[in-house]
Amino acid sequence: MPLAIRPDAVHAAAARIRPLARRTPVLNNDAFDSEAGPRVFFKCENLQRGGAFKIRGASNLILSLPADVLARGIVTYSSGNHAQAVAIACKHVGARAHIVMPEDAPRSKMEATRSHGPDIVTYNRFTENRETIAGAILKETGGTLVPPFDHPLIMAGQGTAVLELLDETGPLDAIITPVGGGGLLSGSAIIARAQYHAVRVFGAEPEGANDTFLSLQAGTQVTVAHPDTIADGLRSPRPGELTFPVVRELVESVILVSDAEIREAVKFLLLHMKILVEPSGAVPAAVVLFHKLPPGIRTIGVVLSGGNVDLEELAKY
Amino acid sequence: MPLAIRPDAVHAAAARIRPLARRTPVLNNDAFDSEAGPRVFFKCENLQRGGAFKIRGASNLILSLPADVLARGIVTYSSGNHAQAVAIACKHVGARAHIVMPEDAPRSKMEATRSHGPDIVTYNRFTENRETIAGAILKETGGTLVPPFDHPLIMAGQGTAVLELLDETGPLDAIITPVGGGGLLSGSAIIARAQYHAVRVFGAEPEGANDTFLSLQAGTQVTVAHPDTIADGLRSPRPGELTFPVVRELVESVILVSDAEIREAVKFLLLHMKILVEPSGAVPAAVVLFHKLPPGIRTIGVVLSGGNVDLEELAKY
Repeated sequence: MPLAIRPDAVHAAAARIRPLARRTPVLNNDAFDSEAGPRVFFKCENLQRGGAFKIRGASNLILSLPADVLARGIVTYSSGNHAQAVAIACKHVGARAHIVMPEDAPRSKMEATRSHGPDIVTYNRFTENRETIAGAILKETGGTLVPPFDHPLIMAGQGTAVLELLDETGPLDAIITPVGGGGLLSGSAIIARAQYHAVRVFGAEPEGANDTFLSLQAGTQVTVAHPDTIADGLRSPRPGELTFPVVRELVESVILVSDAEIREAVKFLLLHMKILVEPSGAVPAAVVLFHKLPPGIRTIGVVLSGGNVDLEELAKY
Repeated sequence: MPLAIRPDAVHAAAARIRPLARRTPVLNNDAFDSEAGPRVFFKCENLQRGGAFKIRGASNLILSLPADVLARGIVTYSSGNHAQAVAIACKHVGARAHIVMPEDAPRSKMEATRSHGPDIVTYNRFTENRETIAGAILKETGGTLVPPFDHPLIMAGQGTAVLELLDETGPLDAIITPVGGGGLLSGSAIIARAQYHAVRVFGAEPEGANDTFLSLQAGTQVTVAHPDTIADGLRSPRPGELTFPVVRELVESVILVSDAEIREAVKFLLLHMKILVEPSGAVPAAVVLFHKLPPGIRTIGVVLSGGNVDLEELAKY
């Protein structure tokens, strides 16, 4: 079966999302380089509109919908960053947004999402099923689902971050991104390998939410019933139907880090690079910082995927 | 008397410092814009090498010195950011650096400076005079003083941040920078007014270290005996001999903010823009955030001058 997207879908997304997504800066840092070995280029999606890369995929899908479809509204479910991205894109096009969020989502993510004016429905992620709740709203409104990762337009939109990164750096030995449902990782792999065939692509996953790691070992999608990690954006329990085949074909491996290593990476990025990265976004930086990459990599592009973290949480570090 | 530097000195500095200073990103942010009125462009010198704009001036002076002069070493005094910049530039050219630092300088600034290998001499800033200590080292070594602000090459180097900012944004209604001794503000004013004659230039100063504000009122340099503010980089007691005439001629006004407002600005920048800015660097952002600008400004460039702050200090916010 062919993969869900081709590289030209990422190029098309880059043109489509221009009104909504920023071209974020690429930073490098001496302190990080000397600690970590390879020369590291950070694509700072924590500085993206909405504080995360998610606006790329959400706006790619929403900006592709005709007016009569938008008029019936948009429905989604998300622990936070995708929710905020959908709310921003809906506000931009004047569509009503219905967002299903876990009641224990980080407060800052809930508040930031709410500030863009969507309808928010909360649920208990241990006892309720978000797809069921979203399904009921879809049935009632006739709206359109904008899923958090498993859709060709979402995958293509997320790939635009790495397209911009490589446009700035030129060829790199490797690319590493966080992996939750696999939207960012699959879109990144598609475009990175199209731009430079020799580039090695890695996923970075928390030990407590290692569904993609296990799925690659098993050769098929595995579900982790109750993901447990501080990286709240990566708690999706199972790789997507569309994302996983891309990951299996194009990603060399998924590398695991502990919550303690993630915390250290958040602190390192804040202290030495002066940027705030949320735990989910710092997972690939933790892989580099703790020397978990295979040997032979001299240059690497790291996607710092988001920066939405409660200050109270941060103060505990 | 003519001003200490002309705009072409800033252009020359931009070329000279290229091996050492990064071209830092310019960020803008919807959250800040909607809170604050004018559209704001942030020049992120907190993301600069050494975590502050100071590398621009220090490297402009040090890279202009001939080898036989460098061989006798470099001497400076600084509460932190200039110290680190001098240490980095000296390491780059292979010169010995002697740095006089207050014993109560922020720990992170002291450690970061030390990591580049200079000789550090500490002193008590309430009972000892840093110029006297530096003078003794200069006499003993025959080295060269790299003062923190009152030197044409330092002023010209600091001006390169605003040169890059305007190169990216085009014409702006106004520019605002922090003011300590006036190196950054004077260099910025020289180049901003040369690029766009109509641009309005402002300084931002802490209430507890308002020597430039008082000096402008008096029409001559006034000394504040014991500056008291959390903005540790702006505690210099008196505007410079070379910087003050530039400030008096080209700067519209110096605007004051309280320590509480500075703390709020640091938090706002961290939470909404995902960047770590130290208190001194957040002073102009506090001016904008608390609506202290005169009316009629629709676009403004803000220099976020540095990001070196202890995490323990930050946790108190």
